[in-house]
Amino acid sequence: MQQDTLIIPRYLVPVRPRGTVLEGHGVLLRADRIEAIVPPSALAEVADQATVVNLPSHALLPGLVNTHTHSPMTLLRGFADDLPLLEWLNGHIWPAENRLVDEDFVAAGTRLAICEMLRGGTTCFNENYFFPDEIARVAVESNVRSVVGLPLLDQATSWANEFDEYLQKGLELVDLFEDSGLVEFSLAPHAPYSVSDAGLESIADVSAAREMKVHLHCLETAYDLEHSLETYGLPPLNRLSSRDLLNDRLIAVHMTQLDQDDVAMLADCGVHVVHCPHSNLKLASGFCPTAALLESGVNVAIGTDGAASNNKLDMFEETRCAALLAKGVTGDATAVDAVAALDMMTINGARALGMDEVIGSIERGKKADLCAIDLDQAQTTPLHNLFSQLIYAASASQVSDTWVDGNRVLDSGRLTTLDETAVKEEALAWRVRIGESASHDQAAAQ
Amino acid sequence: MQQDTLIIPRYLVPVRPRGTVLEGHGVLLRADRIEAIVPPSALAEVADQATVVNLPSHALLPGLVNTHTHSPMTLLRGFADDLPLLEWLNGHIWPAENRLVDEDFVAAGTRLAICEMLRGGTTCFNENYFFPDEIARVAVESNVRSVVGLPLLDQATSWANEFDEYLQKGLELVDLFEDSGLVEFSLAPHAPYSVSDAGLESIADVSAAREMKVHLHCLETAYDLEHSLETYGLPPLNRLSSRDLLNDRLIAVHMTQLDQDDVAMLADCGVHVVHCPHSNLKLASGFCPTAALLESGVNVAIGTDGAASNNKLDMFEETRCAALLAKGVTGDATAVDAVAALDMMTINGARALGMDEVIGSIERGKKADLCAIDLDQAQTTPLHNLFSQLIYAASASQVSDTWVDGNRVLDSGRLTTLDETAVKEEALAWRVRIGESASHDQAAAQ
Repeated sequence: MQQDTLIIPRYLVPVRPRGTVLEGHGVLLRADRIEAIVPPSALAEVADQATVVNLPSHALLPGLVNTHTHSPMTLLRGFADDLPLLEWLNGHIWPAENRLVDEDFVAAGTRLAICEMLRGGTTCFNENYFFPDEIARVAVESNVRSVVGLPLLDQATSWANEFDEYLQKGLELVDLFEDSGLVEFSLAPHAPYSVSDAGLESIADVSAAREMKVHLHCLETAYDLEHSLETYGLPPLNRLSSRDLLNDRLIAVHMTQLDQDDVAMLADCGVHVVHCPHSNLKLASGFCPTAALLESGVNVAIGTDGAASNNKLDMFEETRCAALLAKGVTGDATAVDAVAALDMMTINGARALGMDEVIGSIERGKKADLCAIDLDQAQTTPLHNLFSQLIYAASASQVSDTWVDGNRVLDSGRLTTLDETAVKEEALAWRVRIGESASHDQAAAQ
Repeated sequence: MQQDTLIIPRYLVPVRPRGTVLEGHGVLLRADRIEAIVPPSALAEVADQATVVNLPSHALLPGLVNTHTHSPMTLLRGFADDLPLLEWLNGHIWPAENRLVDEDFVAAGTRLAICEMLRGGTTCFNENYFFPDEIARVAVESNVRSVVGLPLLDQATSWANEFDEYLQKGLELVDLFEDSGLVEFSLAPHAPYSVSDAGLESIADVSAAREMKVHLHCLETAYDLEHSLETYGLPPLNRLSSRDLLNDRLIAVHMTQLDQDDVAMLADCGVHVVHCPHSNLKLASGFCPTAALLESGVNVAIGTDGAASNNKLDMFEETRCAALLAKGVTGDATAVDAVAALDMMTINGARALGMDEVIGSIERGKKADLCAIDLDQAQTTPLHNLFSQLIYAASASQVSDTWVDGNRVLDSGRLTTLDETAVKEEALAWRVRIGESASHDQAAAQ
């Protein structure tokens, strides 16, 4: 029988109860679960029966939840930057994807993304890309938790030819991975403007029947609103509502084009919003009204988006940006404080994924998904307020250890489930192929 | 005689010529200067006569220029966050400073700031705080380049009692440190709203006579504009202009309240603007129109501001934020591209300080101020575009080596001119004193 692990950090930040910091406490892991929060008085006794991990200058947090990403796109990091959204998509990203994306591309990019995410304390990611089978396989192999979106489109891609085929191929995966324990699946139509009414209805039916989440880009830019009004005569949220999709199974990503009525409607329906501040800034998409959403009771989580529009998968920098941008945009320096921001990068993500009983906080009985941040660095010295330090000063590079499902996947700075050197070499080989392919395209266009 | 040093990075990014990347080249350092850029064909010969530093997975950049900071305020990092500007200043920061700031506080905080800055590739900082003598002394001891502001106020502080005394004490320092080679001084009135017309006139006279830069917070919030209109009947820029201060010796920091006419006037007068995006967001101050300023030909540099309003002194994160925020605010994803952003964190800062013939780029004859970034990490893999990678993906934690004035002050991740453990311990001791003092205040207020 595997021995229990007792982690003794300098500071334990369980996230629930909200705003709590425990000093001198331990966390006891048994197999894949958090068995107990151990008070100082019981540490010595528990330590006798466990493998002890001392983290004397660290804060221990629940693992971070990256609630929107496209992992394989790490291979396109920096491939086409400083461009307008449509030129970026139509002129660069989509042509490259059409030429290159296959099982190997997806597997290589996912591995690279997982290296970066585990290094930065992310233990669960909400994924949306082609070849969900490969993503799920690599994620399980790498021992990281994920919710993998089943892509649902009307157009043919290398993954499937038409909507029903996408759906059928996707649902087969749900059965295939049922026993993995680490991966779940969501329905992932691309966006309201790229899915027909018939498609939306199918999705609503499957989502209700199977209690599956719907992971959807929504109101990312003003175009989404204009297209919906022109094509369907009503805004996207009303269209989703008319198709029974506006409910607490919907994870709506971006949401930069919202007015006060929209915010109230989202709160009423229990829709979850994922804020991707760096991507929205980089593509000049608009500003998600996070402060107003949170005030209205909407659950708002944080996503990095893919590395082609970010360009990293760093939940610390992303959440810091979310907290700061909320203040700048509202003109209110008290908006989205550090405690609220910490919620957004942990428990709110878990809640969006329907997993807040399982992950997102350090509580007895939850899965042992954890990350430890070493605060003994100049940039996090001195320490007046731990929440401020974690949100406004700490960096992903300070994450020393990460546990997923009880396994120490980052051990004192070393990844244990991935051969990082091989992963980087594989990415470099893909860089050459991507570069050659882009040159070929440019030559053909001349 | 000290031997020359030949640095051979994977990529050399000299910043000038603009947009250049050299592969397989070396940089030869002789004493405090860049002696030559060595082409691949000459490397072997030059290497025979020099100490060779191989950086096989690194980009070598000119040292970064942090063009606005308050170094000692690192001791107040996270001391009072998520508060409105006036409550933050009047209720927390200024009372703490009034009670605590002395020579020791300033020396301890400056040392901590320098640890963080050298670790992040910053080789020159433009400083504005009390006890400029201590800051200059610590900076020279630590072998970092600085321009130290001479505080000029009408009110008494622990440094001086009245404007003329501030000025006299300050100017004595200029002579005292004349031969240091590493420190220069600027005139640093706090802000237009806190300096009288007579004070501004004195500053203009001294600035002109001695060719000294004027380092000034300006139009940080809407209050600055309102106060000037109410008190002087004209906007701050017009008031500065009427006192002969609107010229290329002015380094105007923040500048969030500018209209098109202001931008044109700044361009005409050659005023330098320092953009501090994280501080402006955190205190909900407003948005500096960096894209419009750059387009009009205004020189815009980057500053981190102090750690009480940031909360770190990380020029990579600060510049990334500047590039992204410019896109978000203008709605134009092409605004402030990666090459422009790299200029802002290097040569533009040098130019604002009047030092662009000396630092800010890697060119023969310039001071040997350099930083090396190790790109062999998941988050900067693969490499499609070096400028994108440096601005949008790289982190300060990837800086492995920093040279100032030819000295390797960060050597493979180890600081050579500061005892970092002692510096952190000293900061922790100050944290205790600051906490006790704040508790005392709260008790007294009840």
